[in-house]
Amino acid sequence: MFGEKSFDPSRPDGENATLKNAISPGGWPELGRRYVVPAREGRAVHLKAGHVITVTNPRGSQVCDFWAFAGEDLREVLSMEHSRTSLGHVFPRVGDILVTNRRRGLLEIVEDSSPGVHDTVIASCDLPRYQELGVEGYHDNCTDNLRMALLAIGARAPEIPCPFNIWMNIPIHPDGRTEWLAPVSKPGDYIRLRAMFGCVAVMSACPQDMTPVNGINAQINDLTFKVEEG
Amino acid sequence: MFGEKSFDPSRPDGENATLKNAISPGGWPELGRRYVVPAREGRAVHLKAGHVITVTNPRGSQVCDFWAFAGEDLREVLSMEHSRTSLGHVFPRVGDILVTNRRRGLLEIVEDSSPGVHDTVIASCDLPRYQELGVEGYHDNCTDNLRMALLAIGARAPEIPCPFNIWMNIPIHPDGRTEWLAPVSKPGDYIRLRAMFGCVAVMSACPQDMTPVNGINAQINDLTFKVEEG
Repeated sequence: MFGEKSFDPSRPDGENATLKNAISPGGWPELGRRYVVPAREGRAVHLKAGHVITVTNPRGSQVCDFWAFAGEDLREVLSMEHSRTSLGHVFPRVGDILVTNRRRGLLEIVEDSSPGVHDTVIASCDLPRYQELGVEGYHDNCTDNLRMALLAIGARAPEIPCPFNIWMNIPIHPDGRTEWLAPVSKPGDYIRLRAMFGCVAVMSACPQDMTPVNGINAQINDLTFKVEEG
Repeated sequence: MFGEKSFDPSRPDGENATLKNAISPGGWPELGRRYVVPAREGRAVHLKAGHVITVTNPRGSQVCDFWAFAGEDLREVLSMEHSRTSLGHVFPRVGDILVTNRRRGLLEIVEDSSPGVHDTVIASCDLPRYQELGVEGYHDNCTDNLRMALLAIGARAPEIPCPFNIWMNIPIHPDGRTEWLAPVSKPGDYIRLRAMFGCVAVMSACPQDMTPVNGINAQINDLTFKVEEG
């Protein structure tokens, strides 16, 4: 085989506190306990079938990059392109079932207190993106947060799927043009997702402070989450 | 490590003639020669930096699912989510540079004789998709065509990226709703892409005959391609 060389999608380009701060050594949650995803960091958590995860946006303006991987086989990933196909729309809403790259229903959106403006078309930020924007040296980024959050619980990202960008406000105009706007969510807004089978969910409190996607002040804030029986 | 088990993205769910019909044993093209991607099949071809590939739609109504992988390291893939981010629009057009999951420019759209209606948001069809649509047994599909086209030249798909769906007509309405319409391209339309570094391009003559994406008659047709010095 040719072309099987050096790029390892699971290896972070740099490091932050995500790497040493799993919610528990294996990523299993204490049910009902509220966990913090500190601003600019990421966390991974195991969900069992039927568990409901509530992701909360205390300040209202913080985007959550969200991924999920089948617990039994991380190569089966939550897939935005397959979800868009089965849903018939690109902005997921309550009642929708998000599916994997094997087209299995993985997460049902059971509640959303926000106006429901979320994104499925934009890649997670990464070090090359910040370098394009003029950053020298390291900048926290969602892609590394995903990689580190998984490493912190003893797993590796098999690929970097397109994220479900909760509260990210990217309108798509009829001519295909996109805009990067501030979230329309309000302080305390939350979204609740029910796991249809066991999976690892990963959240990153997006550290993008060079565009208005995290609010016009580009202030990066904490997120919180909890896992409960459904 | 947990969760590193059975699902192998490179393994086809079934088989068609794609597996035994590479354009050459290693996938290297004869420059200027016109190759056929037979209806319902896929083909892989190596491009060197500067090469231009012309993909032609003889009947006008045939969608081409298109992927590319860095020749030096197939884990670096042409990425629709990263391309949408850097382009600022979701329907690529002449002059656009499509980028990889490492945000490197890989393919420039240098010419497009069609009205420029192409899709970047819908997953390639696969066996589970046809099973959802009621098919029993095997149905040719673009995902398997990608897998087989790479196997046919001695490579493996490291993941199944979201494809660049050339001539696929999926309007996105302001509320996010998508529609599945027939292509607006005409017989003989072509698109030309210049490789900015060495890569393997893969094309599938989409076998979707249960929706109008390949024309209202759902007739599946051949595509052709040729590679030339830029």
